[in-house]
Amino acid sequence: MLNPADDRLIAALPEGVVRPLEPRHLDEPRGYFAGQGGLLAVPRNVEEVAAVVRACAEARVAVLPRGGGTGLVAGSVMPEGPAPLVLSMERMTAIRNVWPDEDALVAEAGVTLQQVQDAAAAVDRQFPLSLASQGTAQIGGVLAANAGGTGVLRWGNARALCLGIEAVMPDGSILRDLKRLRKDNTGYSIRDLMIGAEGTLGIITAATLKLAPRPAAVATAMLAVPDPQAALQLLSLAQGMMAGCVTTFELISGQGLAFVAETLPEIRQPLPGAPWSVLLELSLPKGIDPDAAVEDLLGQAMEEGLVLDGAIAQSGQQAAEFWNLREHLPEANRRIGAISSHDISLPLSEIPRFIEDAGAMIAGMGDMRINCFGHLGDGNLHYNVFPGAGRSRADYADLRFRLPEAIYGMVVERGGSFSAEHGVGRLKVADLERWGDPVKLSAMRAIKAALDPQGIMNPGAILA
Amino acid sequence: MLNPADDRLIAALPEGVVRPLEPRHLDEPRGYFAGQGGLLAVPRNVEEVAAVVRACAEARVAVLPRGGGTGLVAGSVMPEGPAPLVLSMERMTAIRNVWPDEDALVAEAGVTLQQVQDAAAAVDRQFPLSLASQGTAQIGGVLAANAGGTGVLRWGNARALCLGIEAVMPDGSILRDLKRLRKDNTGYSIRDLMIGAEGTLGIITAATLKLAPRPAAVATAMLAVPDPQAALQLLSLAQGMMAGCVTTFELISGQGLAFVAETLPEIRQPLPGAPWSVLLELSLPKGIDPDAAVEDLLGQAMEEGLVLDGAIAQSGQQAAEFWNLREHLPEANRRIGAISSHDISLPLSEIPRFIEDAGAMIAGMGDMRINCFGHLGDGNLHYNVFPGAGRSRADYADLRFRLPEAIYGMVVERGGSFSAEHGVGRLKVADLERWGDPVKLSAMRAIKAALDPQGIMNPGAILA
Repeated sequence: MLNPADDRLIAALPEGVVRPLEPRHLDEPRGYFAGQGGLLAVPRNVEEVAAVVRACAEARVAVLPRGGGTGLVAGSVMPEGPAPLVLSMERMTAIRNVWPDEDALVAEAGVTLQQVQDAAAAVDRQFPLSLASQGTAQIGGVLAANAGGTGVLRWGNARALCLGIEAVMPDGSILRDLKRLRKDNTGYSIRDLMIGAEGTLGIITAATLKLAPRPAAVATAMLAVPDPQAALQLLSLAQGMMAGCVTTFELISGQGLAFVAETLPEIRQPLPGAPWSVLLELSLPKGIDPDAAVEDLLGQAMEEGLVLDGAIAQSGQQAAEFWNLREHLPEANRRIGAISSHDISLPLSEIPRFIEDAGAMIAGMGDMRINCFGHLGDGNLHYNVFPGAGRSRADYADLRFRLPEAIYGMVVERGGSFSAEHGVGRLKVADLERWGDPVKLSAMRAIKAALDPQGIMNPGAILA
Repeated sequence: MLNPADDRLIAALPEGVVRPLEPRHLDEPRGYFAGQGGLLAVPRNVEEVAAVVRACAEARVAVLPRGGGTGLVAGSVMPEGPAPLVLSMERMTAIRNVWPDEDALVAEAGVTLQQVQDAAAAVDRQFPLSLASQGTAQIGGVLAANAGGTGVLRWGNARALCLGIEAVMPDGSILRDLKRLRKDNTGYSIRDLMIGAEGTLGIITAATLKLAPRPAAVATAMLAVPDPQAALQLLSLAQGMMAGCVTTFELISGQGLAFVAETLPEIRQPLPGAPWSVLLELSLPKGIDPDAAVEDLLGQAMEEGLVLDGAIAQSGQQAAEFWNLREHLPEANRRIGAISSHDISLPLSEIPRFIEDAGAMIAGMGDMRINCFGHLGDGNLHYNVFPGAGRSRADYADLRFRLPEAIYGMVVERGGSFSAEHGVGRLKVADLERWGDPVKLSAMRAIKAALDPQGIMNPGAILA
């Protein structure tokens, strides 16, 4: 049993790291969970992080790592149990090194994703991980969650963009593995294990991140397609013609466009009323004309009946407008107010039938609207269910838990995942128990017990 | 303490899995280690693998997983300790499924890398992992070793090309995680942990592998460069111009060309006598002329003084000839006979000075020749040291262990790795102890003890 973090612990902490907890340290964006008080520690460097964790280990106090607080599964609020020490990385904000010729930089955990992108841009490179919350999300949390976003099709998740980490383990020891190597087969990949572990196996304090050259040209288009099957065929066609250059392939539903029109009428829509749309981006090498490339693709796709209509961005500003529409889908959803949201992934070829079958199932459950959108190129859909027009969430209270149960069941049955990019946190602990492979779960429990025998690191996240 | 695998175990094994051990099950390509007898099990499916492992766990007998036997660090021969059960995957050779539209297939552990490539090609896709031993190396071993090769610059190591695994854990339970998802954040990545664990945490029995579209065009060139620094500047230039399209960037030393000329005079050399050469391959989308692209790059590079001379492949046959030269470097090395070979990686910008400093150090140790070649784009060098001209290995017996010690020291000091792509196996256990991060080692030991408490899985590999 753990002890609460109270004033008795303060004497054991490094000078100057304790600060008053603020409301922002206790909330999560969806508002399902409310954190409780305790202590806040804001260390300035890895040695101080280690000292804090050692003190907590000694006192058997839970450590709750906290980044930008943008996670969507309540991984960094602890509503129950003995009050934790909240360990915020907000003062570890240095970019320690940049090696433009190596396409690498080292950022501390508290640097925001936007700041990493800016540091890359300052040396004519890119950090190709992109999220709606990048202005607030911090690199430590991005890695702890193995965040995804809109560049995964080409660049992979956060894990694929990390070459090395520095971390404090649950006993307060410091893992010094900030290598910047593309190949290093020297034993188990503790790094890949810590990434995605949501702070339950230790705290990532800094990371070497992989940068990439900026493309010589970018082509952006919004394409109306008749249905998800056509969108997938378009993806296949695009990949075949433009091997390796398709960097974004986002699906937008007609319902999504309608929600934006209703709640955010000032957002310009290039193809209003499209039944389904795809936001496509090609990142191209020198020697190719971006307009010609996308027109060639569009011509072929129209000939095959895959595309109904298309708008090709004629300027960076127009491309930004297309992206702006895509990025406001979540805000429109918030304004409509979902009954239940689902971050799912499926094998690509299962997606059209899933969308059909799930739609039919939900129609049978009541009068609801579905906004199904997201990272189609990765098989990752944000499948969100809303009240019927003119009705309110309160009318659907009985469905709040039945919907995820039914949807996840249908997803898992088809080889999919009930958490594609958001992680498990506290929100999906029961789902992991229910749908996870039991042998994988048992390996996870064994590893957690081996590395954190007292169970002080973010207790209650991922594993009950 | 473990028991030897002897006839007493047979009754507990599934019918028909025991076969006589053959010499090929007991050797390793470098001939440093000789395996010992025991039992051989050749299961046909994952249930039989599980039954074999359960029987060994019960009898406390070591399990030695065996793939194609091409590993270079003696990970699959056990020269010491109680005789193991050799668990060969040679009968698990099915490609269970191919999904061309999803760029994925499921292969059993005993399928060779070449067969995976062929299966991908049969549906107009590629599996972009490529190794000299691909005709013999099996997918199970490729993943256990997290193999690298010549496509890592663009495609990553084996780990990056695996979407899911099926594996038998040390207690005989079956991990069923053969997903084919690009995003799946449902707990610790046990898959990434098992990949690269060299069979010490369980046995991978099948894997979902990521395929890729074939490029619309490929451009291949052999370029003579004045020195490694120029080669790195050329890499940077190529990445900047052809973002994402540089798929191979191999370094060849003048010494390597001389060894080939001496031992394999029938191999055609496009640029004989070059001090250093780069084998460059671009994989290009539709809409770009491959000749023009590589000529553009070459023109710019010559203007900047980075390239002395170049040969651009005018046909697939000529490209194959360039590759043939690259692929015969290891054979020429074998014929000359190295004193000591080193699979190292370094941060890219450290490479030129390392090559200089290590060369000077070795010159100070005696009359030796150095063939430094390999995957420069990944910072991965095969740094091999040979007797001076006309002398024999026997003259250098005292250096056989001093050389690695000195070279690895110099590598680690510069942030590099003493095992870039070959792994640890039994050959580098002491090196890992010596040069590995102690906190990482301690996490590895805790995980090994947690998942394999009896220590039956490939004992003696990676961890002593």
